[in-house]
Amino acid sequence: MTSTPPAPSSFPNPTVLDLAASSIALTRQICDVESVSGNEKALADAIAAALADVDHLEIIRDGDTIVARTNLGRAERVVIAGHIDTVPLNNNLPTRYETIDGTEHLWGRGTVDMKAGVAVQLKLAAELTDPAVDVTWMWYDHEEVSDELNGLGRLARNRPDLFVGDFAILGEPTKSQIEGGCNGNLRVEVRTFGLRSHSARSWVGENAIHKVAPILNILAEYQPREVEVEGLVYREGLNAVGITGGIAGNIIPDECMVHVNYRFAPSRSADEAVAHLRELFDGFDVTVVDRAEGARPGLDAPLARDFMNAVGGVAKPKYGWTDVSRFSALGVPAVNYGPGDPLKAHADDERVAVAEITSCENGLRAWLSASAR
Amino acid sequence: MTSTPPAPSSFPNPTVLDLAASSIALTRQICDVESVSGNEKALADAIAAALADVDHLEIIRDGDTIVARTNLGRAERVVIAGHIDTVPLNNNLPTRYETIDGTEHLWGRGTVDMKAGVAVQLKLAAELTDPAVDVTWMWYDHEEVSDELNGLGRLARNRPDLFVGDFAILGEPTKSQIEGGCNGNLRVEVRTFGLRSHSARSWVGENAIHKVAPILNILAEYQPREVEVEGLVYREGLNAVGITGGIAGNIIPDECMVHVNYRFAPSRSADEAVAHLRELFDGFDVTVVDRAEGARPGLDAPLARDFMNAVGGVAKPKYGWTDVSRFSALGVPAVNYGPGDPLKAHADDERVAVAEITSCENGLRAWLSASAR
Repeated sequence: MTSTPPAPSSFPNPTVLDLAASSIALTRQICDVESVSGNEKALADAIAAALADVDHLEIIRDGDTIVARTNLGRAERVVIAGHIDTVPLNNNLPTRYETIDGTEHLWGRGTVDMKAGVAVQLKLAAELTDPAVDVTWMWYDHEEVSDELNGLGRLARNRPDLFVGDFAILGEPTKSQIEGGCNGNLRVEVRTFGLRSHSARSWVGENAIHKVAPILNILAEYQPREVEVEGLVYREGLNAVGITGGIAGNIIPDECMVHVNYRFAPSRSADEAVAHLRELFDGFDVTVVDRAEGARPGLDAPLARDFMNAVGGVAKPKYGWTDVSRFSALGVPAVNYGPGDPLKAHADDERVAVAEITSCENGLRAWLSASAR
Repeated sequence: MTSTPPAPSSFPNPTVLDLAASSIALTRQICDVESVSGNEKALADAIAAALADVDHLEIIRDGDTIVARTNLGRAERVVIAGHIDTVPLNNNLPTRYETIDGTEHLWGRGTVDMKAGVAVQLKLAAELTDPAVDVTWMWYDHEEVSDELNGLGRLARNRPDLFVGDFAILGEPTKSQIEGGCNGNLRVEVRTFGLRSHSARSWVGENAIHKVAPILNILAEYQPREVEVEGLVYREGLNAVGITGGIAGNIIPDECMVHVNYRFAPSRSADEAVAHLRELFDGFDVTVVDRAEGARPGLDAPLARDFMNAVGGVAKPKYGWTDVSRFSALGVPAVNYGPGDPLKAHADDERVAVAEITSCENGLRAWLSASAR
């Protein structure tokens, strides 16, 4: 199936970003440069071009990841990062403004996850010539796809020196509230085996699907924990996200697989999470297919407390896994802070309340502009 | 993937069948005319051509089904039928002779299911000019695929007059022993529903896969019946033959489906079987996707008793569903009787002991050649 491409006039693909525009207008410009994972080059080029003449920033490029940093000799350094890729389109570009229940929104792919955050960061990177802390800005590729492609992960391998810092902020959507840390994420395949036979003589075989009953009983009866970590309560989840078995309508199946997803509080390591599932599914074949450490909220770091005071509001836990855990793993306390409702991320009606973009810009600007410590 | 086609010289595709050859040699000729369901035309043409000059038979063609019948004014008429299609090949044509544990076999697709039976029938149709009963021979297409394509079913709709008879024999593989009737066959889809959500916030959703646990518990704990019908004991079976659910590794699934196959004794109608499953899975969404009546063995019919006496051995129940139930539904007692081990039907190493072909031929010939009743 193909969809009709929009007429060129209605879908501008600007290669020039205007960083002097409002953060709302800049969000729109960035969103209208389509950058589904793997196709970030045009946007990375535009970002690099827009910052090329900004004197107070050192620019480093790694693939389609752009790093811009100040070197002002401040006592502290903060890393502020955002990914520039999006999940695939679903007829939701170009962007448009929409008023919903009296609230103005910018609608379209990437508005929430997370080009509004990138726009705020990009604008402040260019405008804040004299921030209170040295800042390392990072805009990276391939966040929405498998872990091994992640641009931030690649940069950490290629240039670990760039990750030195006292605090990190990731611009993932949080409705411009601070969300600390994140749950870990583990996926395993739990398998049963049997013996294939014709279903007219099922007693000759051994039904692998029937053997899955105890696995589903365990999942259905499981009581997920709520775990307090550094003052934030993380809610866990253990779920079958897939099940598959069967060969044909007249064959007793010899294999069945339950795909299990465990979201675990950052008080638990991925190794401990694996051990927990192996104990839970003792006697069954368990294969780990994906694992990602959680991240402790890190809100007791001095810069984090300072940031919370500047931004206001009450910090909350982040349930979904985000790249803050990469900073956490490197010993850099990190929080999520960006415009947009996470429930609208990846949604077909993805849209951000424009007031949240301004609020995020104001919060970051106030904190970064405070007198140098 | 493509496989190398066999060299023409090694894979003869005869369009002429030699009905004067032995039933073993004729089996081989018929098997080497590939006739996977939907591709029966060449074989149907060859059968029609081979019988064209046989004076004592009236030939009727319906699609790729060939009917040949005597009109001798006998007091009784017997229908003897066999399907000419096979399941797909798996590098098991052309046929070859193989000696296994000192027993000679003919190896290859169709040798068991059921071209050896067809060969015996075809040879006897041509040779028995003066049978004890009038005979309606039927060789039909599309038995190995979905019910609505079945050539015997089509013929019953187009020419119900051809199904008039006092007894029927289907040449399905029974190791040349009489197997009476068959179990019924029912397939249903049992569904659960939930509410989709991101798995990082699974408490917002409702997991449809977890809700399948009680369905699998019912299946795992089910004790299938053994039911005596007219002296034969039919063994039932209730099995999940498929299960499917899940959208992605990070989504709580809102639907899950268990595909259930119920093989039920011919003492129960398909309606009763459906009612049994609806009661068993009360509270779940149950959709019937396929249903086929069983067939009572019909061994108390006079011609059946006569046939058993002629052939010898002890009649057994047929567990798998076969087209005998079509005759049974039309009020014609019917049994299965043909060469080959049913466990080798559809197998990659499908092969028939050649002695069973001769035995089947002898059994049928003796009975049909007895002095007219």
